[in-house]
Amino acid sequence: MEHTKILLDENEMPTHWYNILADFPEPLAPPLNPATREPIKPSELEPIFAKELIKQEMSPERYIDIPQEILEIYKLWRPSPLHRAHRLEKVLGTPAKIYYKDESVSPAGSHKPNTAIAQAYYNMKEGTEKITTETGAGQWGSALSLSCNYFDIECKVFMVRSSFYQKPYRKSLINLWGASVIPSPSPETQFGRMILEKYPDTNGSLGIAISEAIEVAALNDNTKYALGSVLNHTCLHQTIVGLETQKQFEKTEDYPDIVIGCCGGGSNLAGVSLPYIRDNIAGKTDTRIIAVEPSACPSLTEGRFDYDFGDMAQMTPLLKMYTLGSEFIPPAIHAGGLRYHGASPIVSKLVADGMMEARSYHQVEIFDAAVTFARSEGIAPAPESAHAIKCAIDEALKCKETGEEKTILFNLSGHGHFDMASYDMYFSGKLTNE
Amino acid sequence: MEHTKILLDENEMPTHWYNILADFPEPLAPPLNPATREPIKPSELEPIFAKELIKQEMSPERYIDIPQEILEIYKLWRPSPLHRAHRLEKVLGTPAKIYYKDESVSPAGSHKPNTAIAQAYYNMKEGTEKITTETGAGQWGSALSLSCNYFDIECKVFMVRSSFYQKPYRKSLINLWGASVIPSPSPETQFGRMILEKYPDTNGSLGIAISEAIEVAALNDNTKYALGSVLNHTCLHQTIVGLETQKQFEKTEDYPDIVIGCCGGGSNLAGVSLPYIRDNIAGKTDTRIIAVEPSACPSLTEGRFDYDFGDMAQMTPLLKMYTLGSEFIPPAIHAGGLRYHGASPIVSKLVADGMMEARSYHQVEIFDAAVTFARSEGIAPAPESAHAIKCAIDEALKCKETGEEKTILFNLSGHGHFDMASYDMYFSGKLTNE
Repeated sequence: MEHTKILLDENEMPTHWYNILADFPEPLAPPLNPATREPIKPSELEPIFAKELIKQEMSPERYIDIPQEILEIYKLWRPSPLHRAHRLEKVLGTPAKIYYKDESVSPAGSHKPNTAIAQAYYNMKEGTEKITTETGAGQWGSALSLSCNYFDIECKVFMVRSSFYQKPYRKSLINLWGASVIPSPSPETQFGRMILEKYPDTNGSLGIAISEAIEVAALNDNTKYALGSVLNHTCLHQTIVGLETQKQFEKTEDYPDIVIGCCGGGSNLAGVSLPYIRDNIAGKTDTRIIAVEPSACPSLTEGRFDYDFGDMAQMTPLLKMYTLGSEFIPPAIHAGGLRYHGASPIVSKLVADGMMEARSYHQVEIFDAAVTFARSEGIAPAPESAHAIKCAIDEALKCKETGEEKTILFNLSGHGHFDMASYDMYFSGKLTNE
Repeated sequence: MEHTKILLDENEMPTHWYNILADFPEPLAPPLNPATREPIKPSELEPIFAKELIKQEMSPERYIDIPQEILEIYKLWRPSPLHRAHRLEKVLGTPAKIYYKDESVSPAGSHKPNTAIAQAYYNMKEGTEKITTETGAGQWGSALSLSCNYFDIECKVFMVRSSFYQKPYRKSLINLWGASVIPSPSPETQFGRMILEKYPDTNGSLGIAISEAIEVAALNDNTKYALGSVLNHTCLHQTIVGLETQKQFEKTEDYPDIVIGCCGGGSNLAGVSLPYIRDNIAGKTDTRIIAVEPSACPSLTEGRFDYDFGDMAQMTPLLKMYTLGSEFIPPAIHAGGLRYHGASPIVSKLVADGMMEARSYHQVEIFDAAVTFARSEGIAPAPESAHAIKCAIDEALKCKETGEEKTILFNLSGHGHFDMASYDMYFSGKLTNE
């Protein structure tokens, strides 16, 4: 039997990230200062972001070296395994070959530490003493907590209220690594107090939590803000995922015809797919790339492609992206990490230019796919990742109809160990089909 | 920098288990029929166990081939990584080299599937339609659920009541893989009803849950029982853990001076240590082996070495082991997997003969060690595994005093993703120091 897992040695781990900004046929539309509508200057971002991250956000360099200290921490779990889903293929009866990259093996259980470690590192280098952030399902908050712990930086997490109560043990994990976490909207910020007064029963949203975290960073010295997705530098740091898969495919006789990732802010999707898009742009390959989002929060499939704010308080620069409007509050679906009104400008541009497809699924069919996966491949997936699984299953079933032996790769962005209450609702038939 | 993880390719995975019964200087004291006090006959065990497992329980063969179908499932997560704990060493300031085998990477999150897969496989081969079992913290129940799922066997889990409510999401995981789970004592068995009448507020215990599971297996056709630890064949199946570490150490310049495992029933400890004890018996090495148990349930350190029942209803054969008495109900400590009144006859014999040391720790110091580990190595450990961590830290700190550069190996038997309520209690200062 062929290998089940394709592994890389630590010595084979990529030592640089790939920056797609160098390969776009035309420059990405720049972020704008909302007051002037002029492209924002790096210095205007310095109150909230580390300088090196601002530099990476706008860098024209195709490859950016990964500092040794970051590589050493990555090695706690990286390179992550690439799995051939033999058992899932058999259950589906498909001639397709299904592979998945297992990013659930990080201590925080998702791909998020790939950028969290980098962001904490550069902040440490520049003397940051405290980092604030938001978190949806808690994947990002726990990843940043882990990362700040390694560089002795204080970390404060604003967690979307619906997830704070749906996923109590993600809070515990954030505490375990030493960060503090409170539900958002919170009474600790001016914006939070305003929302609480206006909508006391709100579920919260990533947009609100971002506003609160930025407010704290903007008002305090040596305090910076970190974003877990959307921005160019988060996509950059995640490219280690796709770069590793390319090295792993070199060890097989396969190469993906289709690459799939779920899309909230867009970073895990960008991470797995950008190196393949690089090769598409270079004319070497013609790989289909598919972004998968929840029907309840369909920015790529139903949003408008326009400049919009990244947060609800309209404090961020304007980003050119697919958006449902910065005031949009999505239903409290269980894939909390995908409850964002916008999408990464890089991903948005790729979709707008036809270099990436997008589709959406409803919540119940996502959980159907998650259970099929857990009972074949073993791993209990995060509801977010189950969007990618559902799409991979659909593509594999199409191959069953046509008889095509396509190779399908999806990114298993995280495990569902902290999402079991959602599975309970699914099995009890109480899950709403948003 | 040296490697952080020592990996094996799937082709390097051991293809046999190691059976220490072949190497004991004298035969292990046999299990006795409690009525006759005569050694039990294999045929007397057939109503509750698969024949092949009974054969393995008493086999004189040194090595037993692992069937191909089992190897293929093992490959979903095996070989598991051996980690060098560079960061933990640095935090401790020790000259010792600390390694840990990461058994938390299985889909169920622990070493338990190593024997669960094997037991489900042999039962499938013999036509078993349903398997009953008990579970403490839920590690074993979820592992057996995963395994029965692969062989289309119905699975019913009696879960110790205190854990059923402390760890609600382990139940969800058991359901995800298709098994059913109820709190023990339950009204579904004669023994459960008796206990509920006598002690309506009981926390339950592994001894009670075992009695219930055996009762169902004994009274129903094509229904067998599976035990996750204690018995010889569970220790046998776990030896793949230690055998892998030996192949992994061949890739380093190190060899362990000390091997450490936590001990409830004893299977993860046996798994990691028996191959080293084989080499000790052969006179090739002089590796110290340390069993670590909770002070709240100190069978090896304070129990008597004698024949006793494996369950509370006194339905099992009598086993020669260290025991606190089959009627002993331990406090509801958070390391639920270590709440067992006895210990594996193999482990007990090794302790009695001075071939293995034993020590115990209190609950709060265990969690102190778990937090130190999580903040250095990243992984959030199971409270059970934290017993091994605590011992490894103590041994490493001794090396700091003496200046010795010992090599220490411990088995990280599982992650703590379903134990976060225990961490919450620890951080809130509410954890009792049992």
